[in-house]
Amino acid sequence: MSDIKVGIIMGSQSDLPVMAEAAKFLEEIEVGYELTIVSAHRTPDRMIDYAVKARERGIKVIIAGAGGAAHLPGMVASLTSLPVIGVPVKSSNSIDGWDSILSILQMPSGIPVATVALNGAKNAGILAASIVGAFEEAVGNRMEAFKRSLKAKVEASAKEVEQKGWRKILGE
Amino acid sequence: MSDIKVGIIMGSQSDLPVMAEAAKFLEEIEVGYELTIVSAHRTPDRMIDYAVKARERGIKVIIAGAGGAAHLPGMVASLTSLPVIGVPVKSSNSIDGWDSILSILQMPSGIPVATVALNGAKNAGILAASIVGAFEEAVGNRMEAFKRSLKAKVEASAKEVEQKGWRKILGE
Amino acid sequence: MSDIKVGIIMGSQSDLPVMAEAAKFLEEIEVGYELTIVSAHRTPDRMIDYAVKARERGIKVIIAGAGGAAHLPGMVASLTSLPVIGVPVKSSNSIDGWDSILSILQMPSGIPVATVALNGAKNAGILAASIVGAFEEAVGNRMEAFKRSLKAKVEASAKEVEQKGWRKILGE
Amino acid sequence: MSDIKVGIIMGSQSDLPVMAEAAKFLEEIEVGYELTIVSAHRTPDRMIDYAVKARERGIKVIIAGAGGAAHLPGMVASLTSLPVIGVPVKSSNSIDGWDSILSILQMPSGIPVATVALNGAKNAGILAASIVGAFEEAVGNRMEAFKRSLKAKVEASAKEVEQKGWRKILGE
Amino acid sequence: MSDIKVGIIMGSQSDLPVMAEAAKFLEEIEVGYELTIVSAHRTPDRMIDYAVKARERGIKVIIAGAGGAAHLPGMVASLTSLPVIGVPVKSSNSIDGWDSILSILQMPSGIPVATVALNGAKNAGILAASIVGAFEEAVGNRMEAFKRSLKAKVEASAKEVEQKGWRKILGE
Amino acid sequence: MSDIKVGIIMGSQSDLPVMAEAAKFLEEIEVGYELTIVSAHRTPDRMIDYAVKARERGIKVIIAGAGGAAHLPGMVASLTSLPVIGVPVKSSNSIDGWDSILSILQMPSGIPVATVALNGAKNAGILAASIVGAFEEAVGNRMEAFKRSLKAKVEASAKEVEQKGWRKILGE
Amino acid sequence: MSDIKVGIIMGSQSDLPVMAEAAKFLEEIEVGYELTIVSAHRTPDRMIDYAVKARERGIKVIIAGAGGAAHLPGMVASLTSLPVIGVPVKSSNSIDGWDSILSILQMPSGIPVATVALNGAKNAGILAASIVGAFEEAVGNRMEAFKRSLKAKVEASAKEVEQKGWRKILGE
Amino acid sequence: MSDIKVGIIMGSQSDLPVMAEAAKFLEEIEVGYELTIVSAHRTPDRMIDYAVKARERGIKVIIAGAGGAAHLPGMVASLTSLPVIGVPVKSSNSIDGWDSILSILQMPSGIPVATVALNGAKNAGILAASIVGAFEEAVGNRMEAFKRSLKAKVEASAKEVEQKGWRKILGE
Repeated sequence: MSDIKVGIIMGSQSDLPVMAEAAKFLEEIEVGYELTIVSAHRTPDRMIDYAVKARERGIKVIIAGAGGAAHLPGMVASLTSLPVIGVPVKSSNSIDGWDSILSILQMPSGIPVATVALNGAKNAGILAASIVGAFEEAVGNRMEAFKRSLKAKVEASAKEVEQKGWRKILGE
Repeated sequence: MSDIKVGIIMGSQSDLPVMAEAAKFLEEIEVGYELTIVSAHRTPDRMIDYAVKARERGIKVIIAGAGGAAHLPGMVASLTSLPVIGVPVKSSNSIDGWDSILSILQMPSGIPVATVALNGAKNAGILAASIVGAFEEAVGNRMEAFKRSLKAKVEASAKEVEQKGWRKILGE
Repeated sequence: MSDIKVGIIMGSQSDLPVMAEAAKFLEEIEVGYELTIVSAHRTPDRMIDYAVKARERGIKVIIAGAGGAAHLPGMVASLTSLPVIGVPVKSSNSIDGWDSILSILQMPSGIPVATVALNGAKNAGILAASIVGAFEEAVGNRMEAFKRSLKAKVEASAKEVEQKGWRKILGE
Repeated sequence: MSDIKVGIIMGSQSDLPVMAEAAKFLEEIEVGYELTIVSAHRTPDRMIDYAVKARERGIKVIIAGAGGAAHLPGMVASLTSLPVIGVPVKSSNSIDGWDSILSILQMPSGIPVATVALNGAKNAGILAASIVGAFEEAVGNRMEAFKRSLKAKVEASAKEVEQKGWRKILGE
Repeated sequence: MSDIKVGIIMGSQSDLPVMAEAAKFLEEIEVGYELTIVSAHRTPDRMIDYAVKARERGIKVIIAGAGGAAHLPGMVASLTSLPVIGVPVKSSNSIDGWDSILSILQMPSGIPVATVALNGAKNAGILAASIVGAFEEAVGNRMEAFKRSLKAKVEASAKEVEQKGWRKILGE
Repeated sequence: MSDIKVGIIMGSQSDLPVMAEAAKFLEEIEVGYELTIVSAHRTPDRMIDYAVKARERGIKVIIAGAGGAAHLPGMVASLTSLPVIGVPVKSSNSIDGWDSILSILQMPSGIPVATVALNGAKNAGILAASIVGAFEEAVGNRMEAFKRSLKAKVEASAKEVEQKGWRKILGE
Repeated sequence: MSDIKVGIIMGSQSDLPVMAEAAKFLEEIEVGYELTIVSAHRTPDRMIDYAVKARERGIKVIIAGAGGAAHLPGMVASLTSLPVIGVPVKSSNSIDGWDSILSILQMPSGIPVATVALNGAKNAGILAASIVGAFEEAVGNRMEAFKRSLKAKVEASAKEVEQKGWRKILGE
Repeated sequence: MSDIKVGIIMGSQSDLPVMAEAAKFLEEIEVGYELTIVSAHRTPDRMIDYAVKARERGIKVIIAGAGGAAHLPGMVASLTSLPVIGVPVKSSNSIDGWDSILSILQMPSGIPVATVALNGAKNAGILAASIVGAFEEAVGNRMEAFKRSLKAKVEASAKEVEQKGWRKILGE
């Protein structure tokens, strides 16, 4: 059985700078992933092939990112029974991201896509890891540690502001 | 060669009351059409089959209607080189129609969908007929006559308002 | 170990008619769930207690629904390492649902919420089942069957429209 | 009979950098076109003259682009029975493009405009070519080849990402 | 010279219930007006004729109402040097009125339309009268009296609430 | 009687670069104006004084510009029976201008503001001149000439594009 | 010194059904209030008089509600140094409440309005009481008790749902 | 008893440049404050501790700023009976600030947050001071003086524009 638990796909190479954040988090948290380009509109056969075979290849979660009238996450979700996480990407042609968000979020009854914030690829990686971590104890433990680290960073930041004062931090 | 020039498809039977307006216009203007249900999310194979074979079956224009995160028009457009007209449908789950509009309108470069107004299925039928009428003279002549009839109706309405006065028409 | 895999919570009893759709689906697909009221704003202690203990109680996924400035899904996500699915509810005070959607979707980096469509509680149930089904084969198989049933319904509907014709179906 | 099949018009010379994309595509796909400036608000006579004579001059499709309260596409559509494609242009005075989109898309019953994405002039060119290609086999064949080229580009891009890895491509 | 100072036009008879409010106010304030139907999209010749001749017929202000992609006010404004007041009408096909508002308000440089609130035909009538009243003293005096009457109504309402108490007024 | 026909006011000196366009046009068209700063929120007495005395000082039209929650145009309109033109200004704190537009446009029944496009101060000047020109023949004649000049500029631009070709103009 | 701590004002008697909720809460929590009609646009003198004298009359907080282009809260805030709470009212002419919200919320620097949710008059009453309660111990204690009562209601509701089950509550 | 009357908190150090404006105003007006970092999502315990103890520590008003799905102001408001002022911050991930505004403004019945304009931290400081100044005469007097200073600045600016003329000020 493959060690790859999460498949990250995106509609175009121009989405890569945003989507790489998901890959980075999965590496840090040590969850196996793969990453490639699959376009709903330009390579429909490739998309179908990817979605239909993902389950039998051992994939547990698919992360799909796309911009504008973003159909990739929803179409993949229609082709697999695995959970699909959708990342709305604010591309150059997008209307402030509203088109990507609504095209991914407002799926019809029967075909959910787990939508995260605009350009929220890191959160997509965290969500994928939390799904794996709900069933695999080692990953779950690392996710618990990650949660604690978020807290520690804020506490350190609070201490710094309180001790230095805001004027010093802002360089005034 | 088939007499059917326009294929009308929609994602769900609940879209029929809206989408039937396209069929009605095509009957009036005597352009052959067919109408059926094809769901991008629930019957992807059927959608691909429909889109891929439409050209060779003699179809000239496809009208596709869908609501919410409406992927049917864009996915069909990605699978055929025929012109595809998209009708955003204001379904019960839609956010005032914005989701349908943006999911159909904001297609990426390379895959246009000819989008009409929210619930504008009649206009989709007129647009399809105008496309056929640009190349087939008989249809073109009937479209010219249709244009003139729009004018006549407004002129009659103007005359009525001017002669009766607005109070009488409003029943005041 | 408990048989309850999914915890469904909502901010107020007025959300129940919407949120019950998640419970109904989980019953159909035979995934154990629990359902209760937890308010981020009115019972913060209860919310913390619920979120913090969910993992050790054997819960795998939490579904949280709320309307208006909907803080419950995000706050629960901040308190657990389990995946949290957020359902924006279009409550009477909501501005067409935009407030609920944005309060749930636009979570900061580090704390994702898997957001579904406005009032999309059924889809939240399906998403939760697909998460369980990615790791538990029996559930996975039932989800595959559910997918096929969606297809069958559309095909039956298409056949009906093609055979009867749209005029008959619309009662014209 | 003229070889010019597509008329490209725009409200102002400032729209030219956007609208030229339509012309570029039509050259590539070898469909005859003409391009000029016609303002609904500043040269109404010229607009009427252009729209009324387009059909008899052999034009098959009109592409009209405009920004802000964009009336050119709709007004031209009211004056001809040819299909009119509208391109909403995000001009400097526009409110994120919403004004252009809604002024072009939301045409009343009887007068459709085939609207494409914001600044989507290339897609307008593609749509115009697909309309011509539905009736003229040589153009239709070139459009089929264009579709295949879109697929080839994505497949090459996917191969590159898979082989090099995303870190190398992002230069990390 | 005609006594008709204000021309009220609208795109369709369905706009009459909204637009009649302008006529009612002008009658009350004793400013001569005329009212008819003129459609930018269905009767362009009639629109041009109306706009071009309005000045020489003695009209001082034109009020134009329309819904959806509302082109009538802007097109009339492009054809006359008289001030044009635009009334966005929330028609059945409108997207909450945003399309009408933006199509009328966001006119390009050189062609202003004096836009009033959605369905604000009464305010259009008041604005037209204030324009006439700025130059004709008798009308100006009646407008001053109208202003005072607004004040008196609110003062009476305030007195009623203070004396009766809000419970009594609400019937509690 | 004063020669000043139009009063231009704005809420803050930071609005001057936008609002000066109204003054420039009025100079070109030779309509007397004055320009100053009046803040509804910071100098309410000054605002009342300005609005109440404008009519007796011979002012015919007031142009008021403001950004954000823009109350100046509406408050001035409530204090005078003269026509008030409102210019929504896209200030640094504005939410893409929507706040300014809605605060000026959506006035209650009885108190209209003639709203122009976002940052449309030049159009406000043109509208003011068209109001004066409806009653004063010399100004009316200059406005007619201005209309013709708009047409001439577009025709020249069209000729340039047709003769040079779009590639040359874009420098390709 | 007066016992009246909170002044509730609104632009029109039609706002009373919404605004009465503020009065009801203040009665329950035993904080003295007064309620009347004051229109920024129709009775500017009355508004100024009310705002300027409120402080010396012993008022501590003003609650002002208005719909559409809602200027009352901001204008009152410009005329007093007391805290002003603004309630956006969704009136019949409002565009889904967006106009009221933005006209009240987006005040310029120097003149804050404490804005609550659309139609949130009850919350305005609670906020006013919390302001008084921050400085007057008896009111503060009653506010603490009110907070606890919110918690108790949710806990009772949770118990009911858990004991009866959601089917019984929904009457299925 | 502490001299600190206002507690300023924010979700992240990246909010400091915006939020420091509140601190600056409170220093100018001589109202004691404290400022620190408290994250609803990353340090929920710290947030609860801060909110629950604020009243007994002598704090009278809490100012809370946050961006995106901004839960800090609302969660703090749910945990204290003190007035809470919310500052929507336009962070890098925000959708033009709409998410922050709606997440803070649209609080459910029972839990108000006094919301100010997007990035309106200075106004939050002014509002906090006006609340203190309603009950403490010395602060109230300083607030009255602050109001007068706003007026003086506008009057000086008006004089400058009138004397120099707008061309000189714009450097034309």
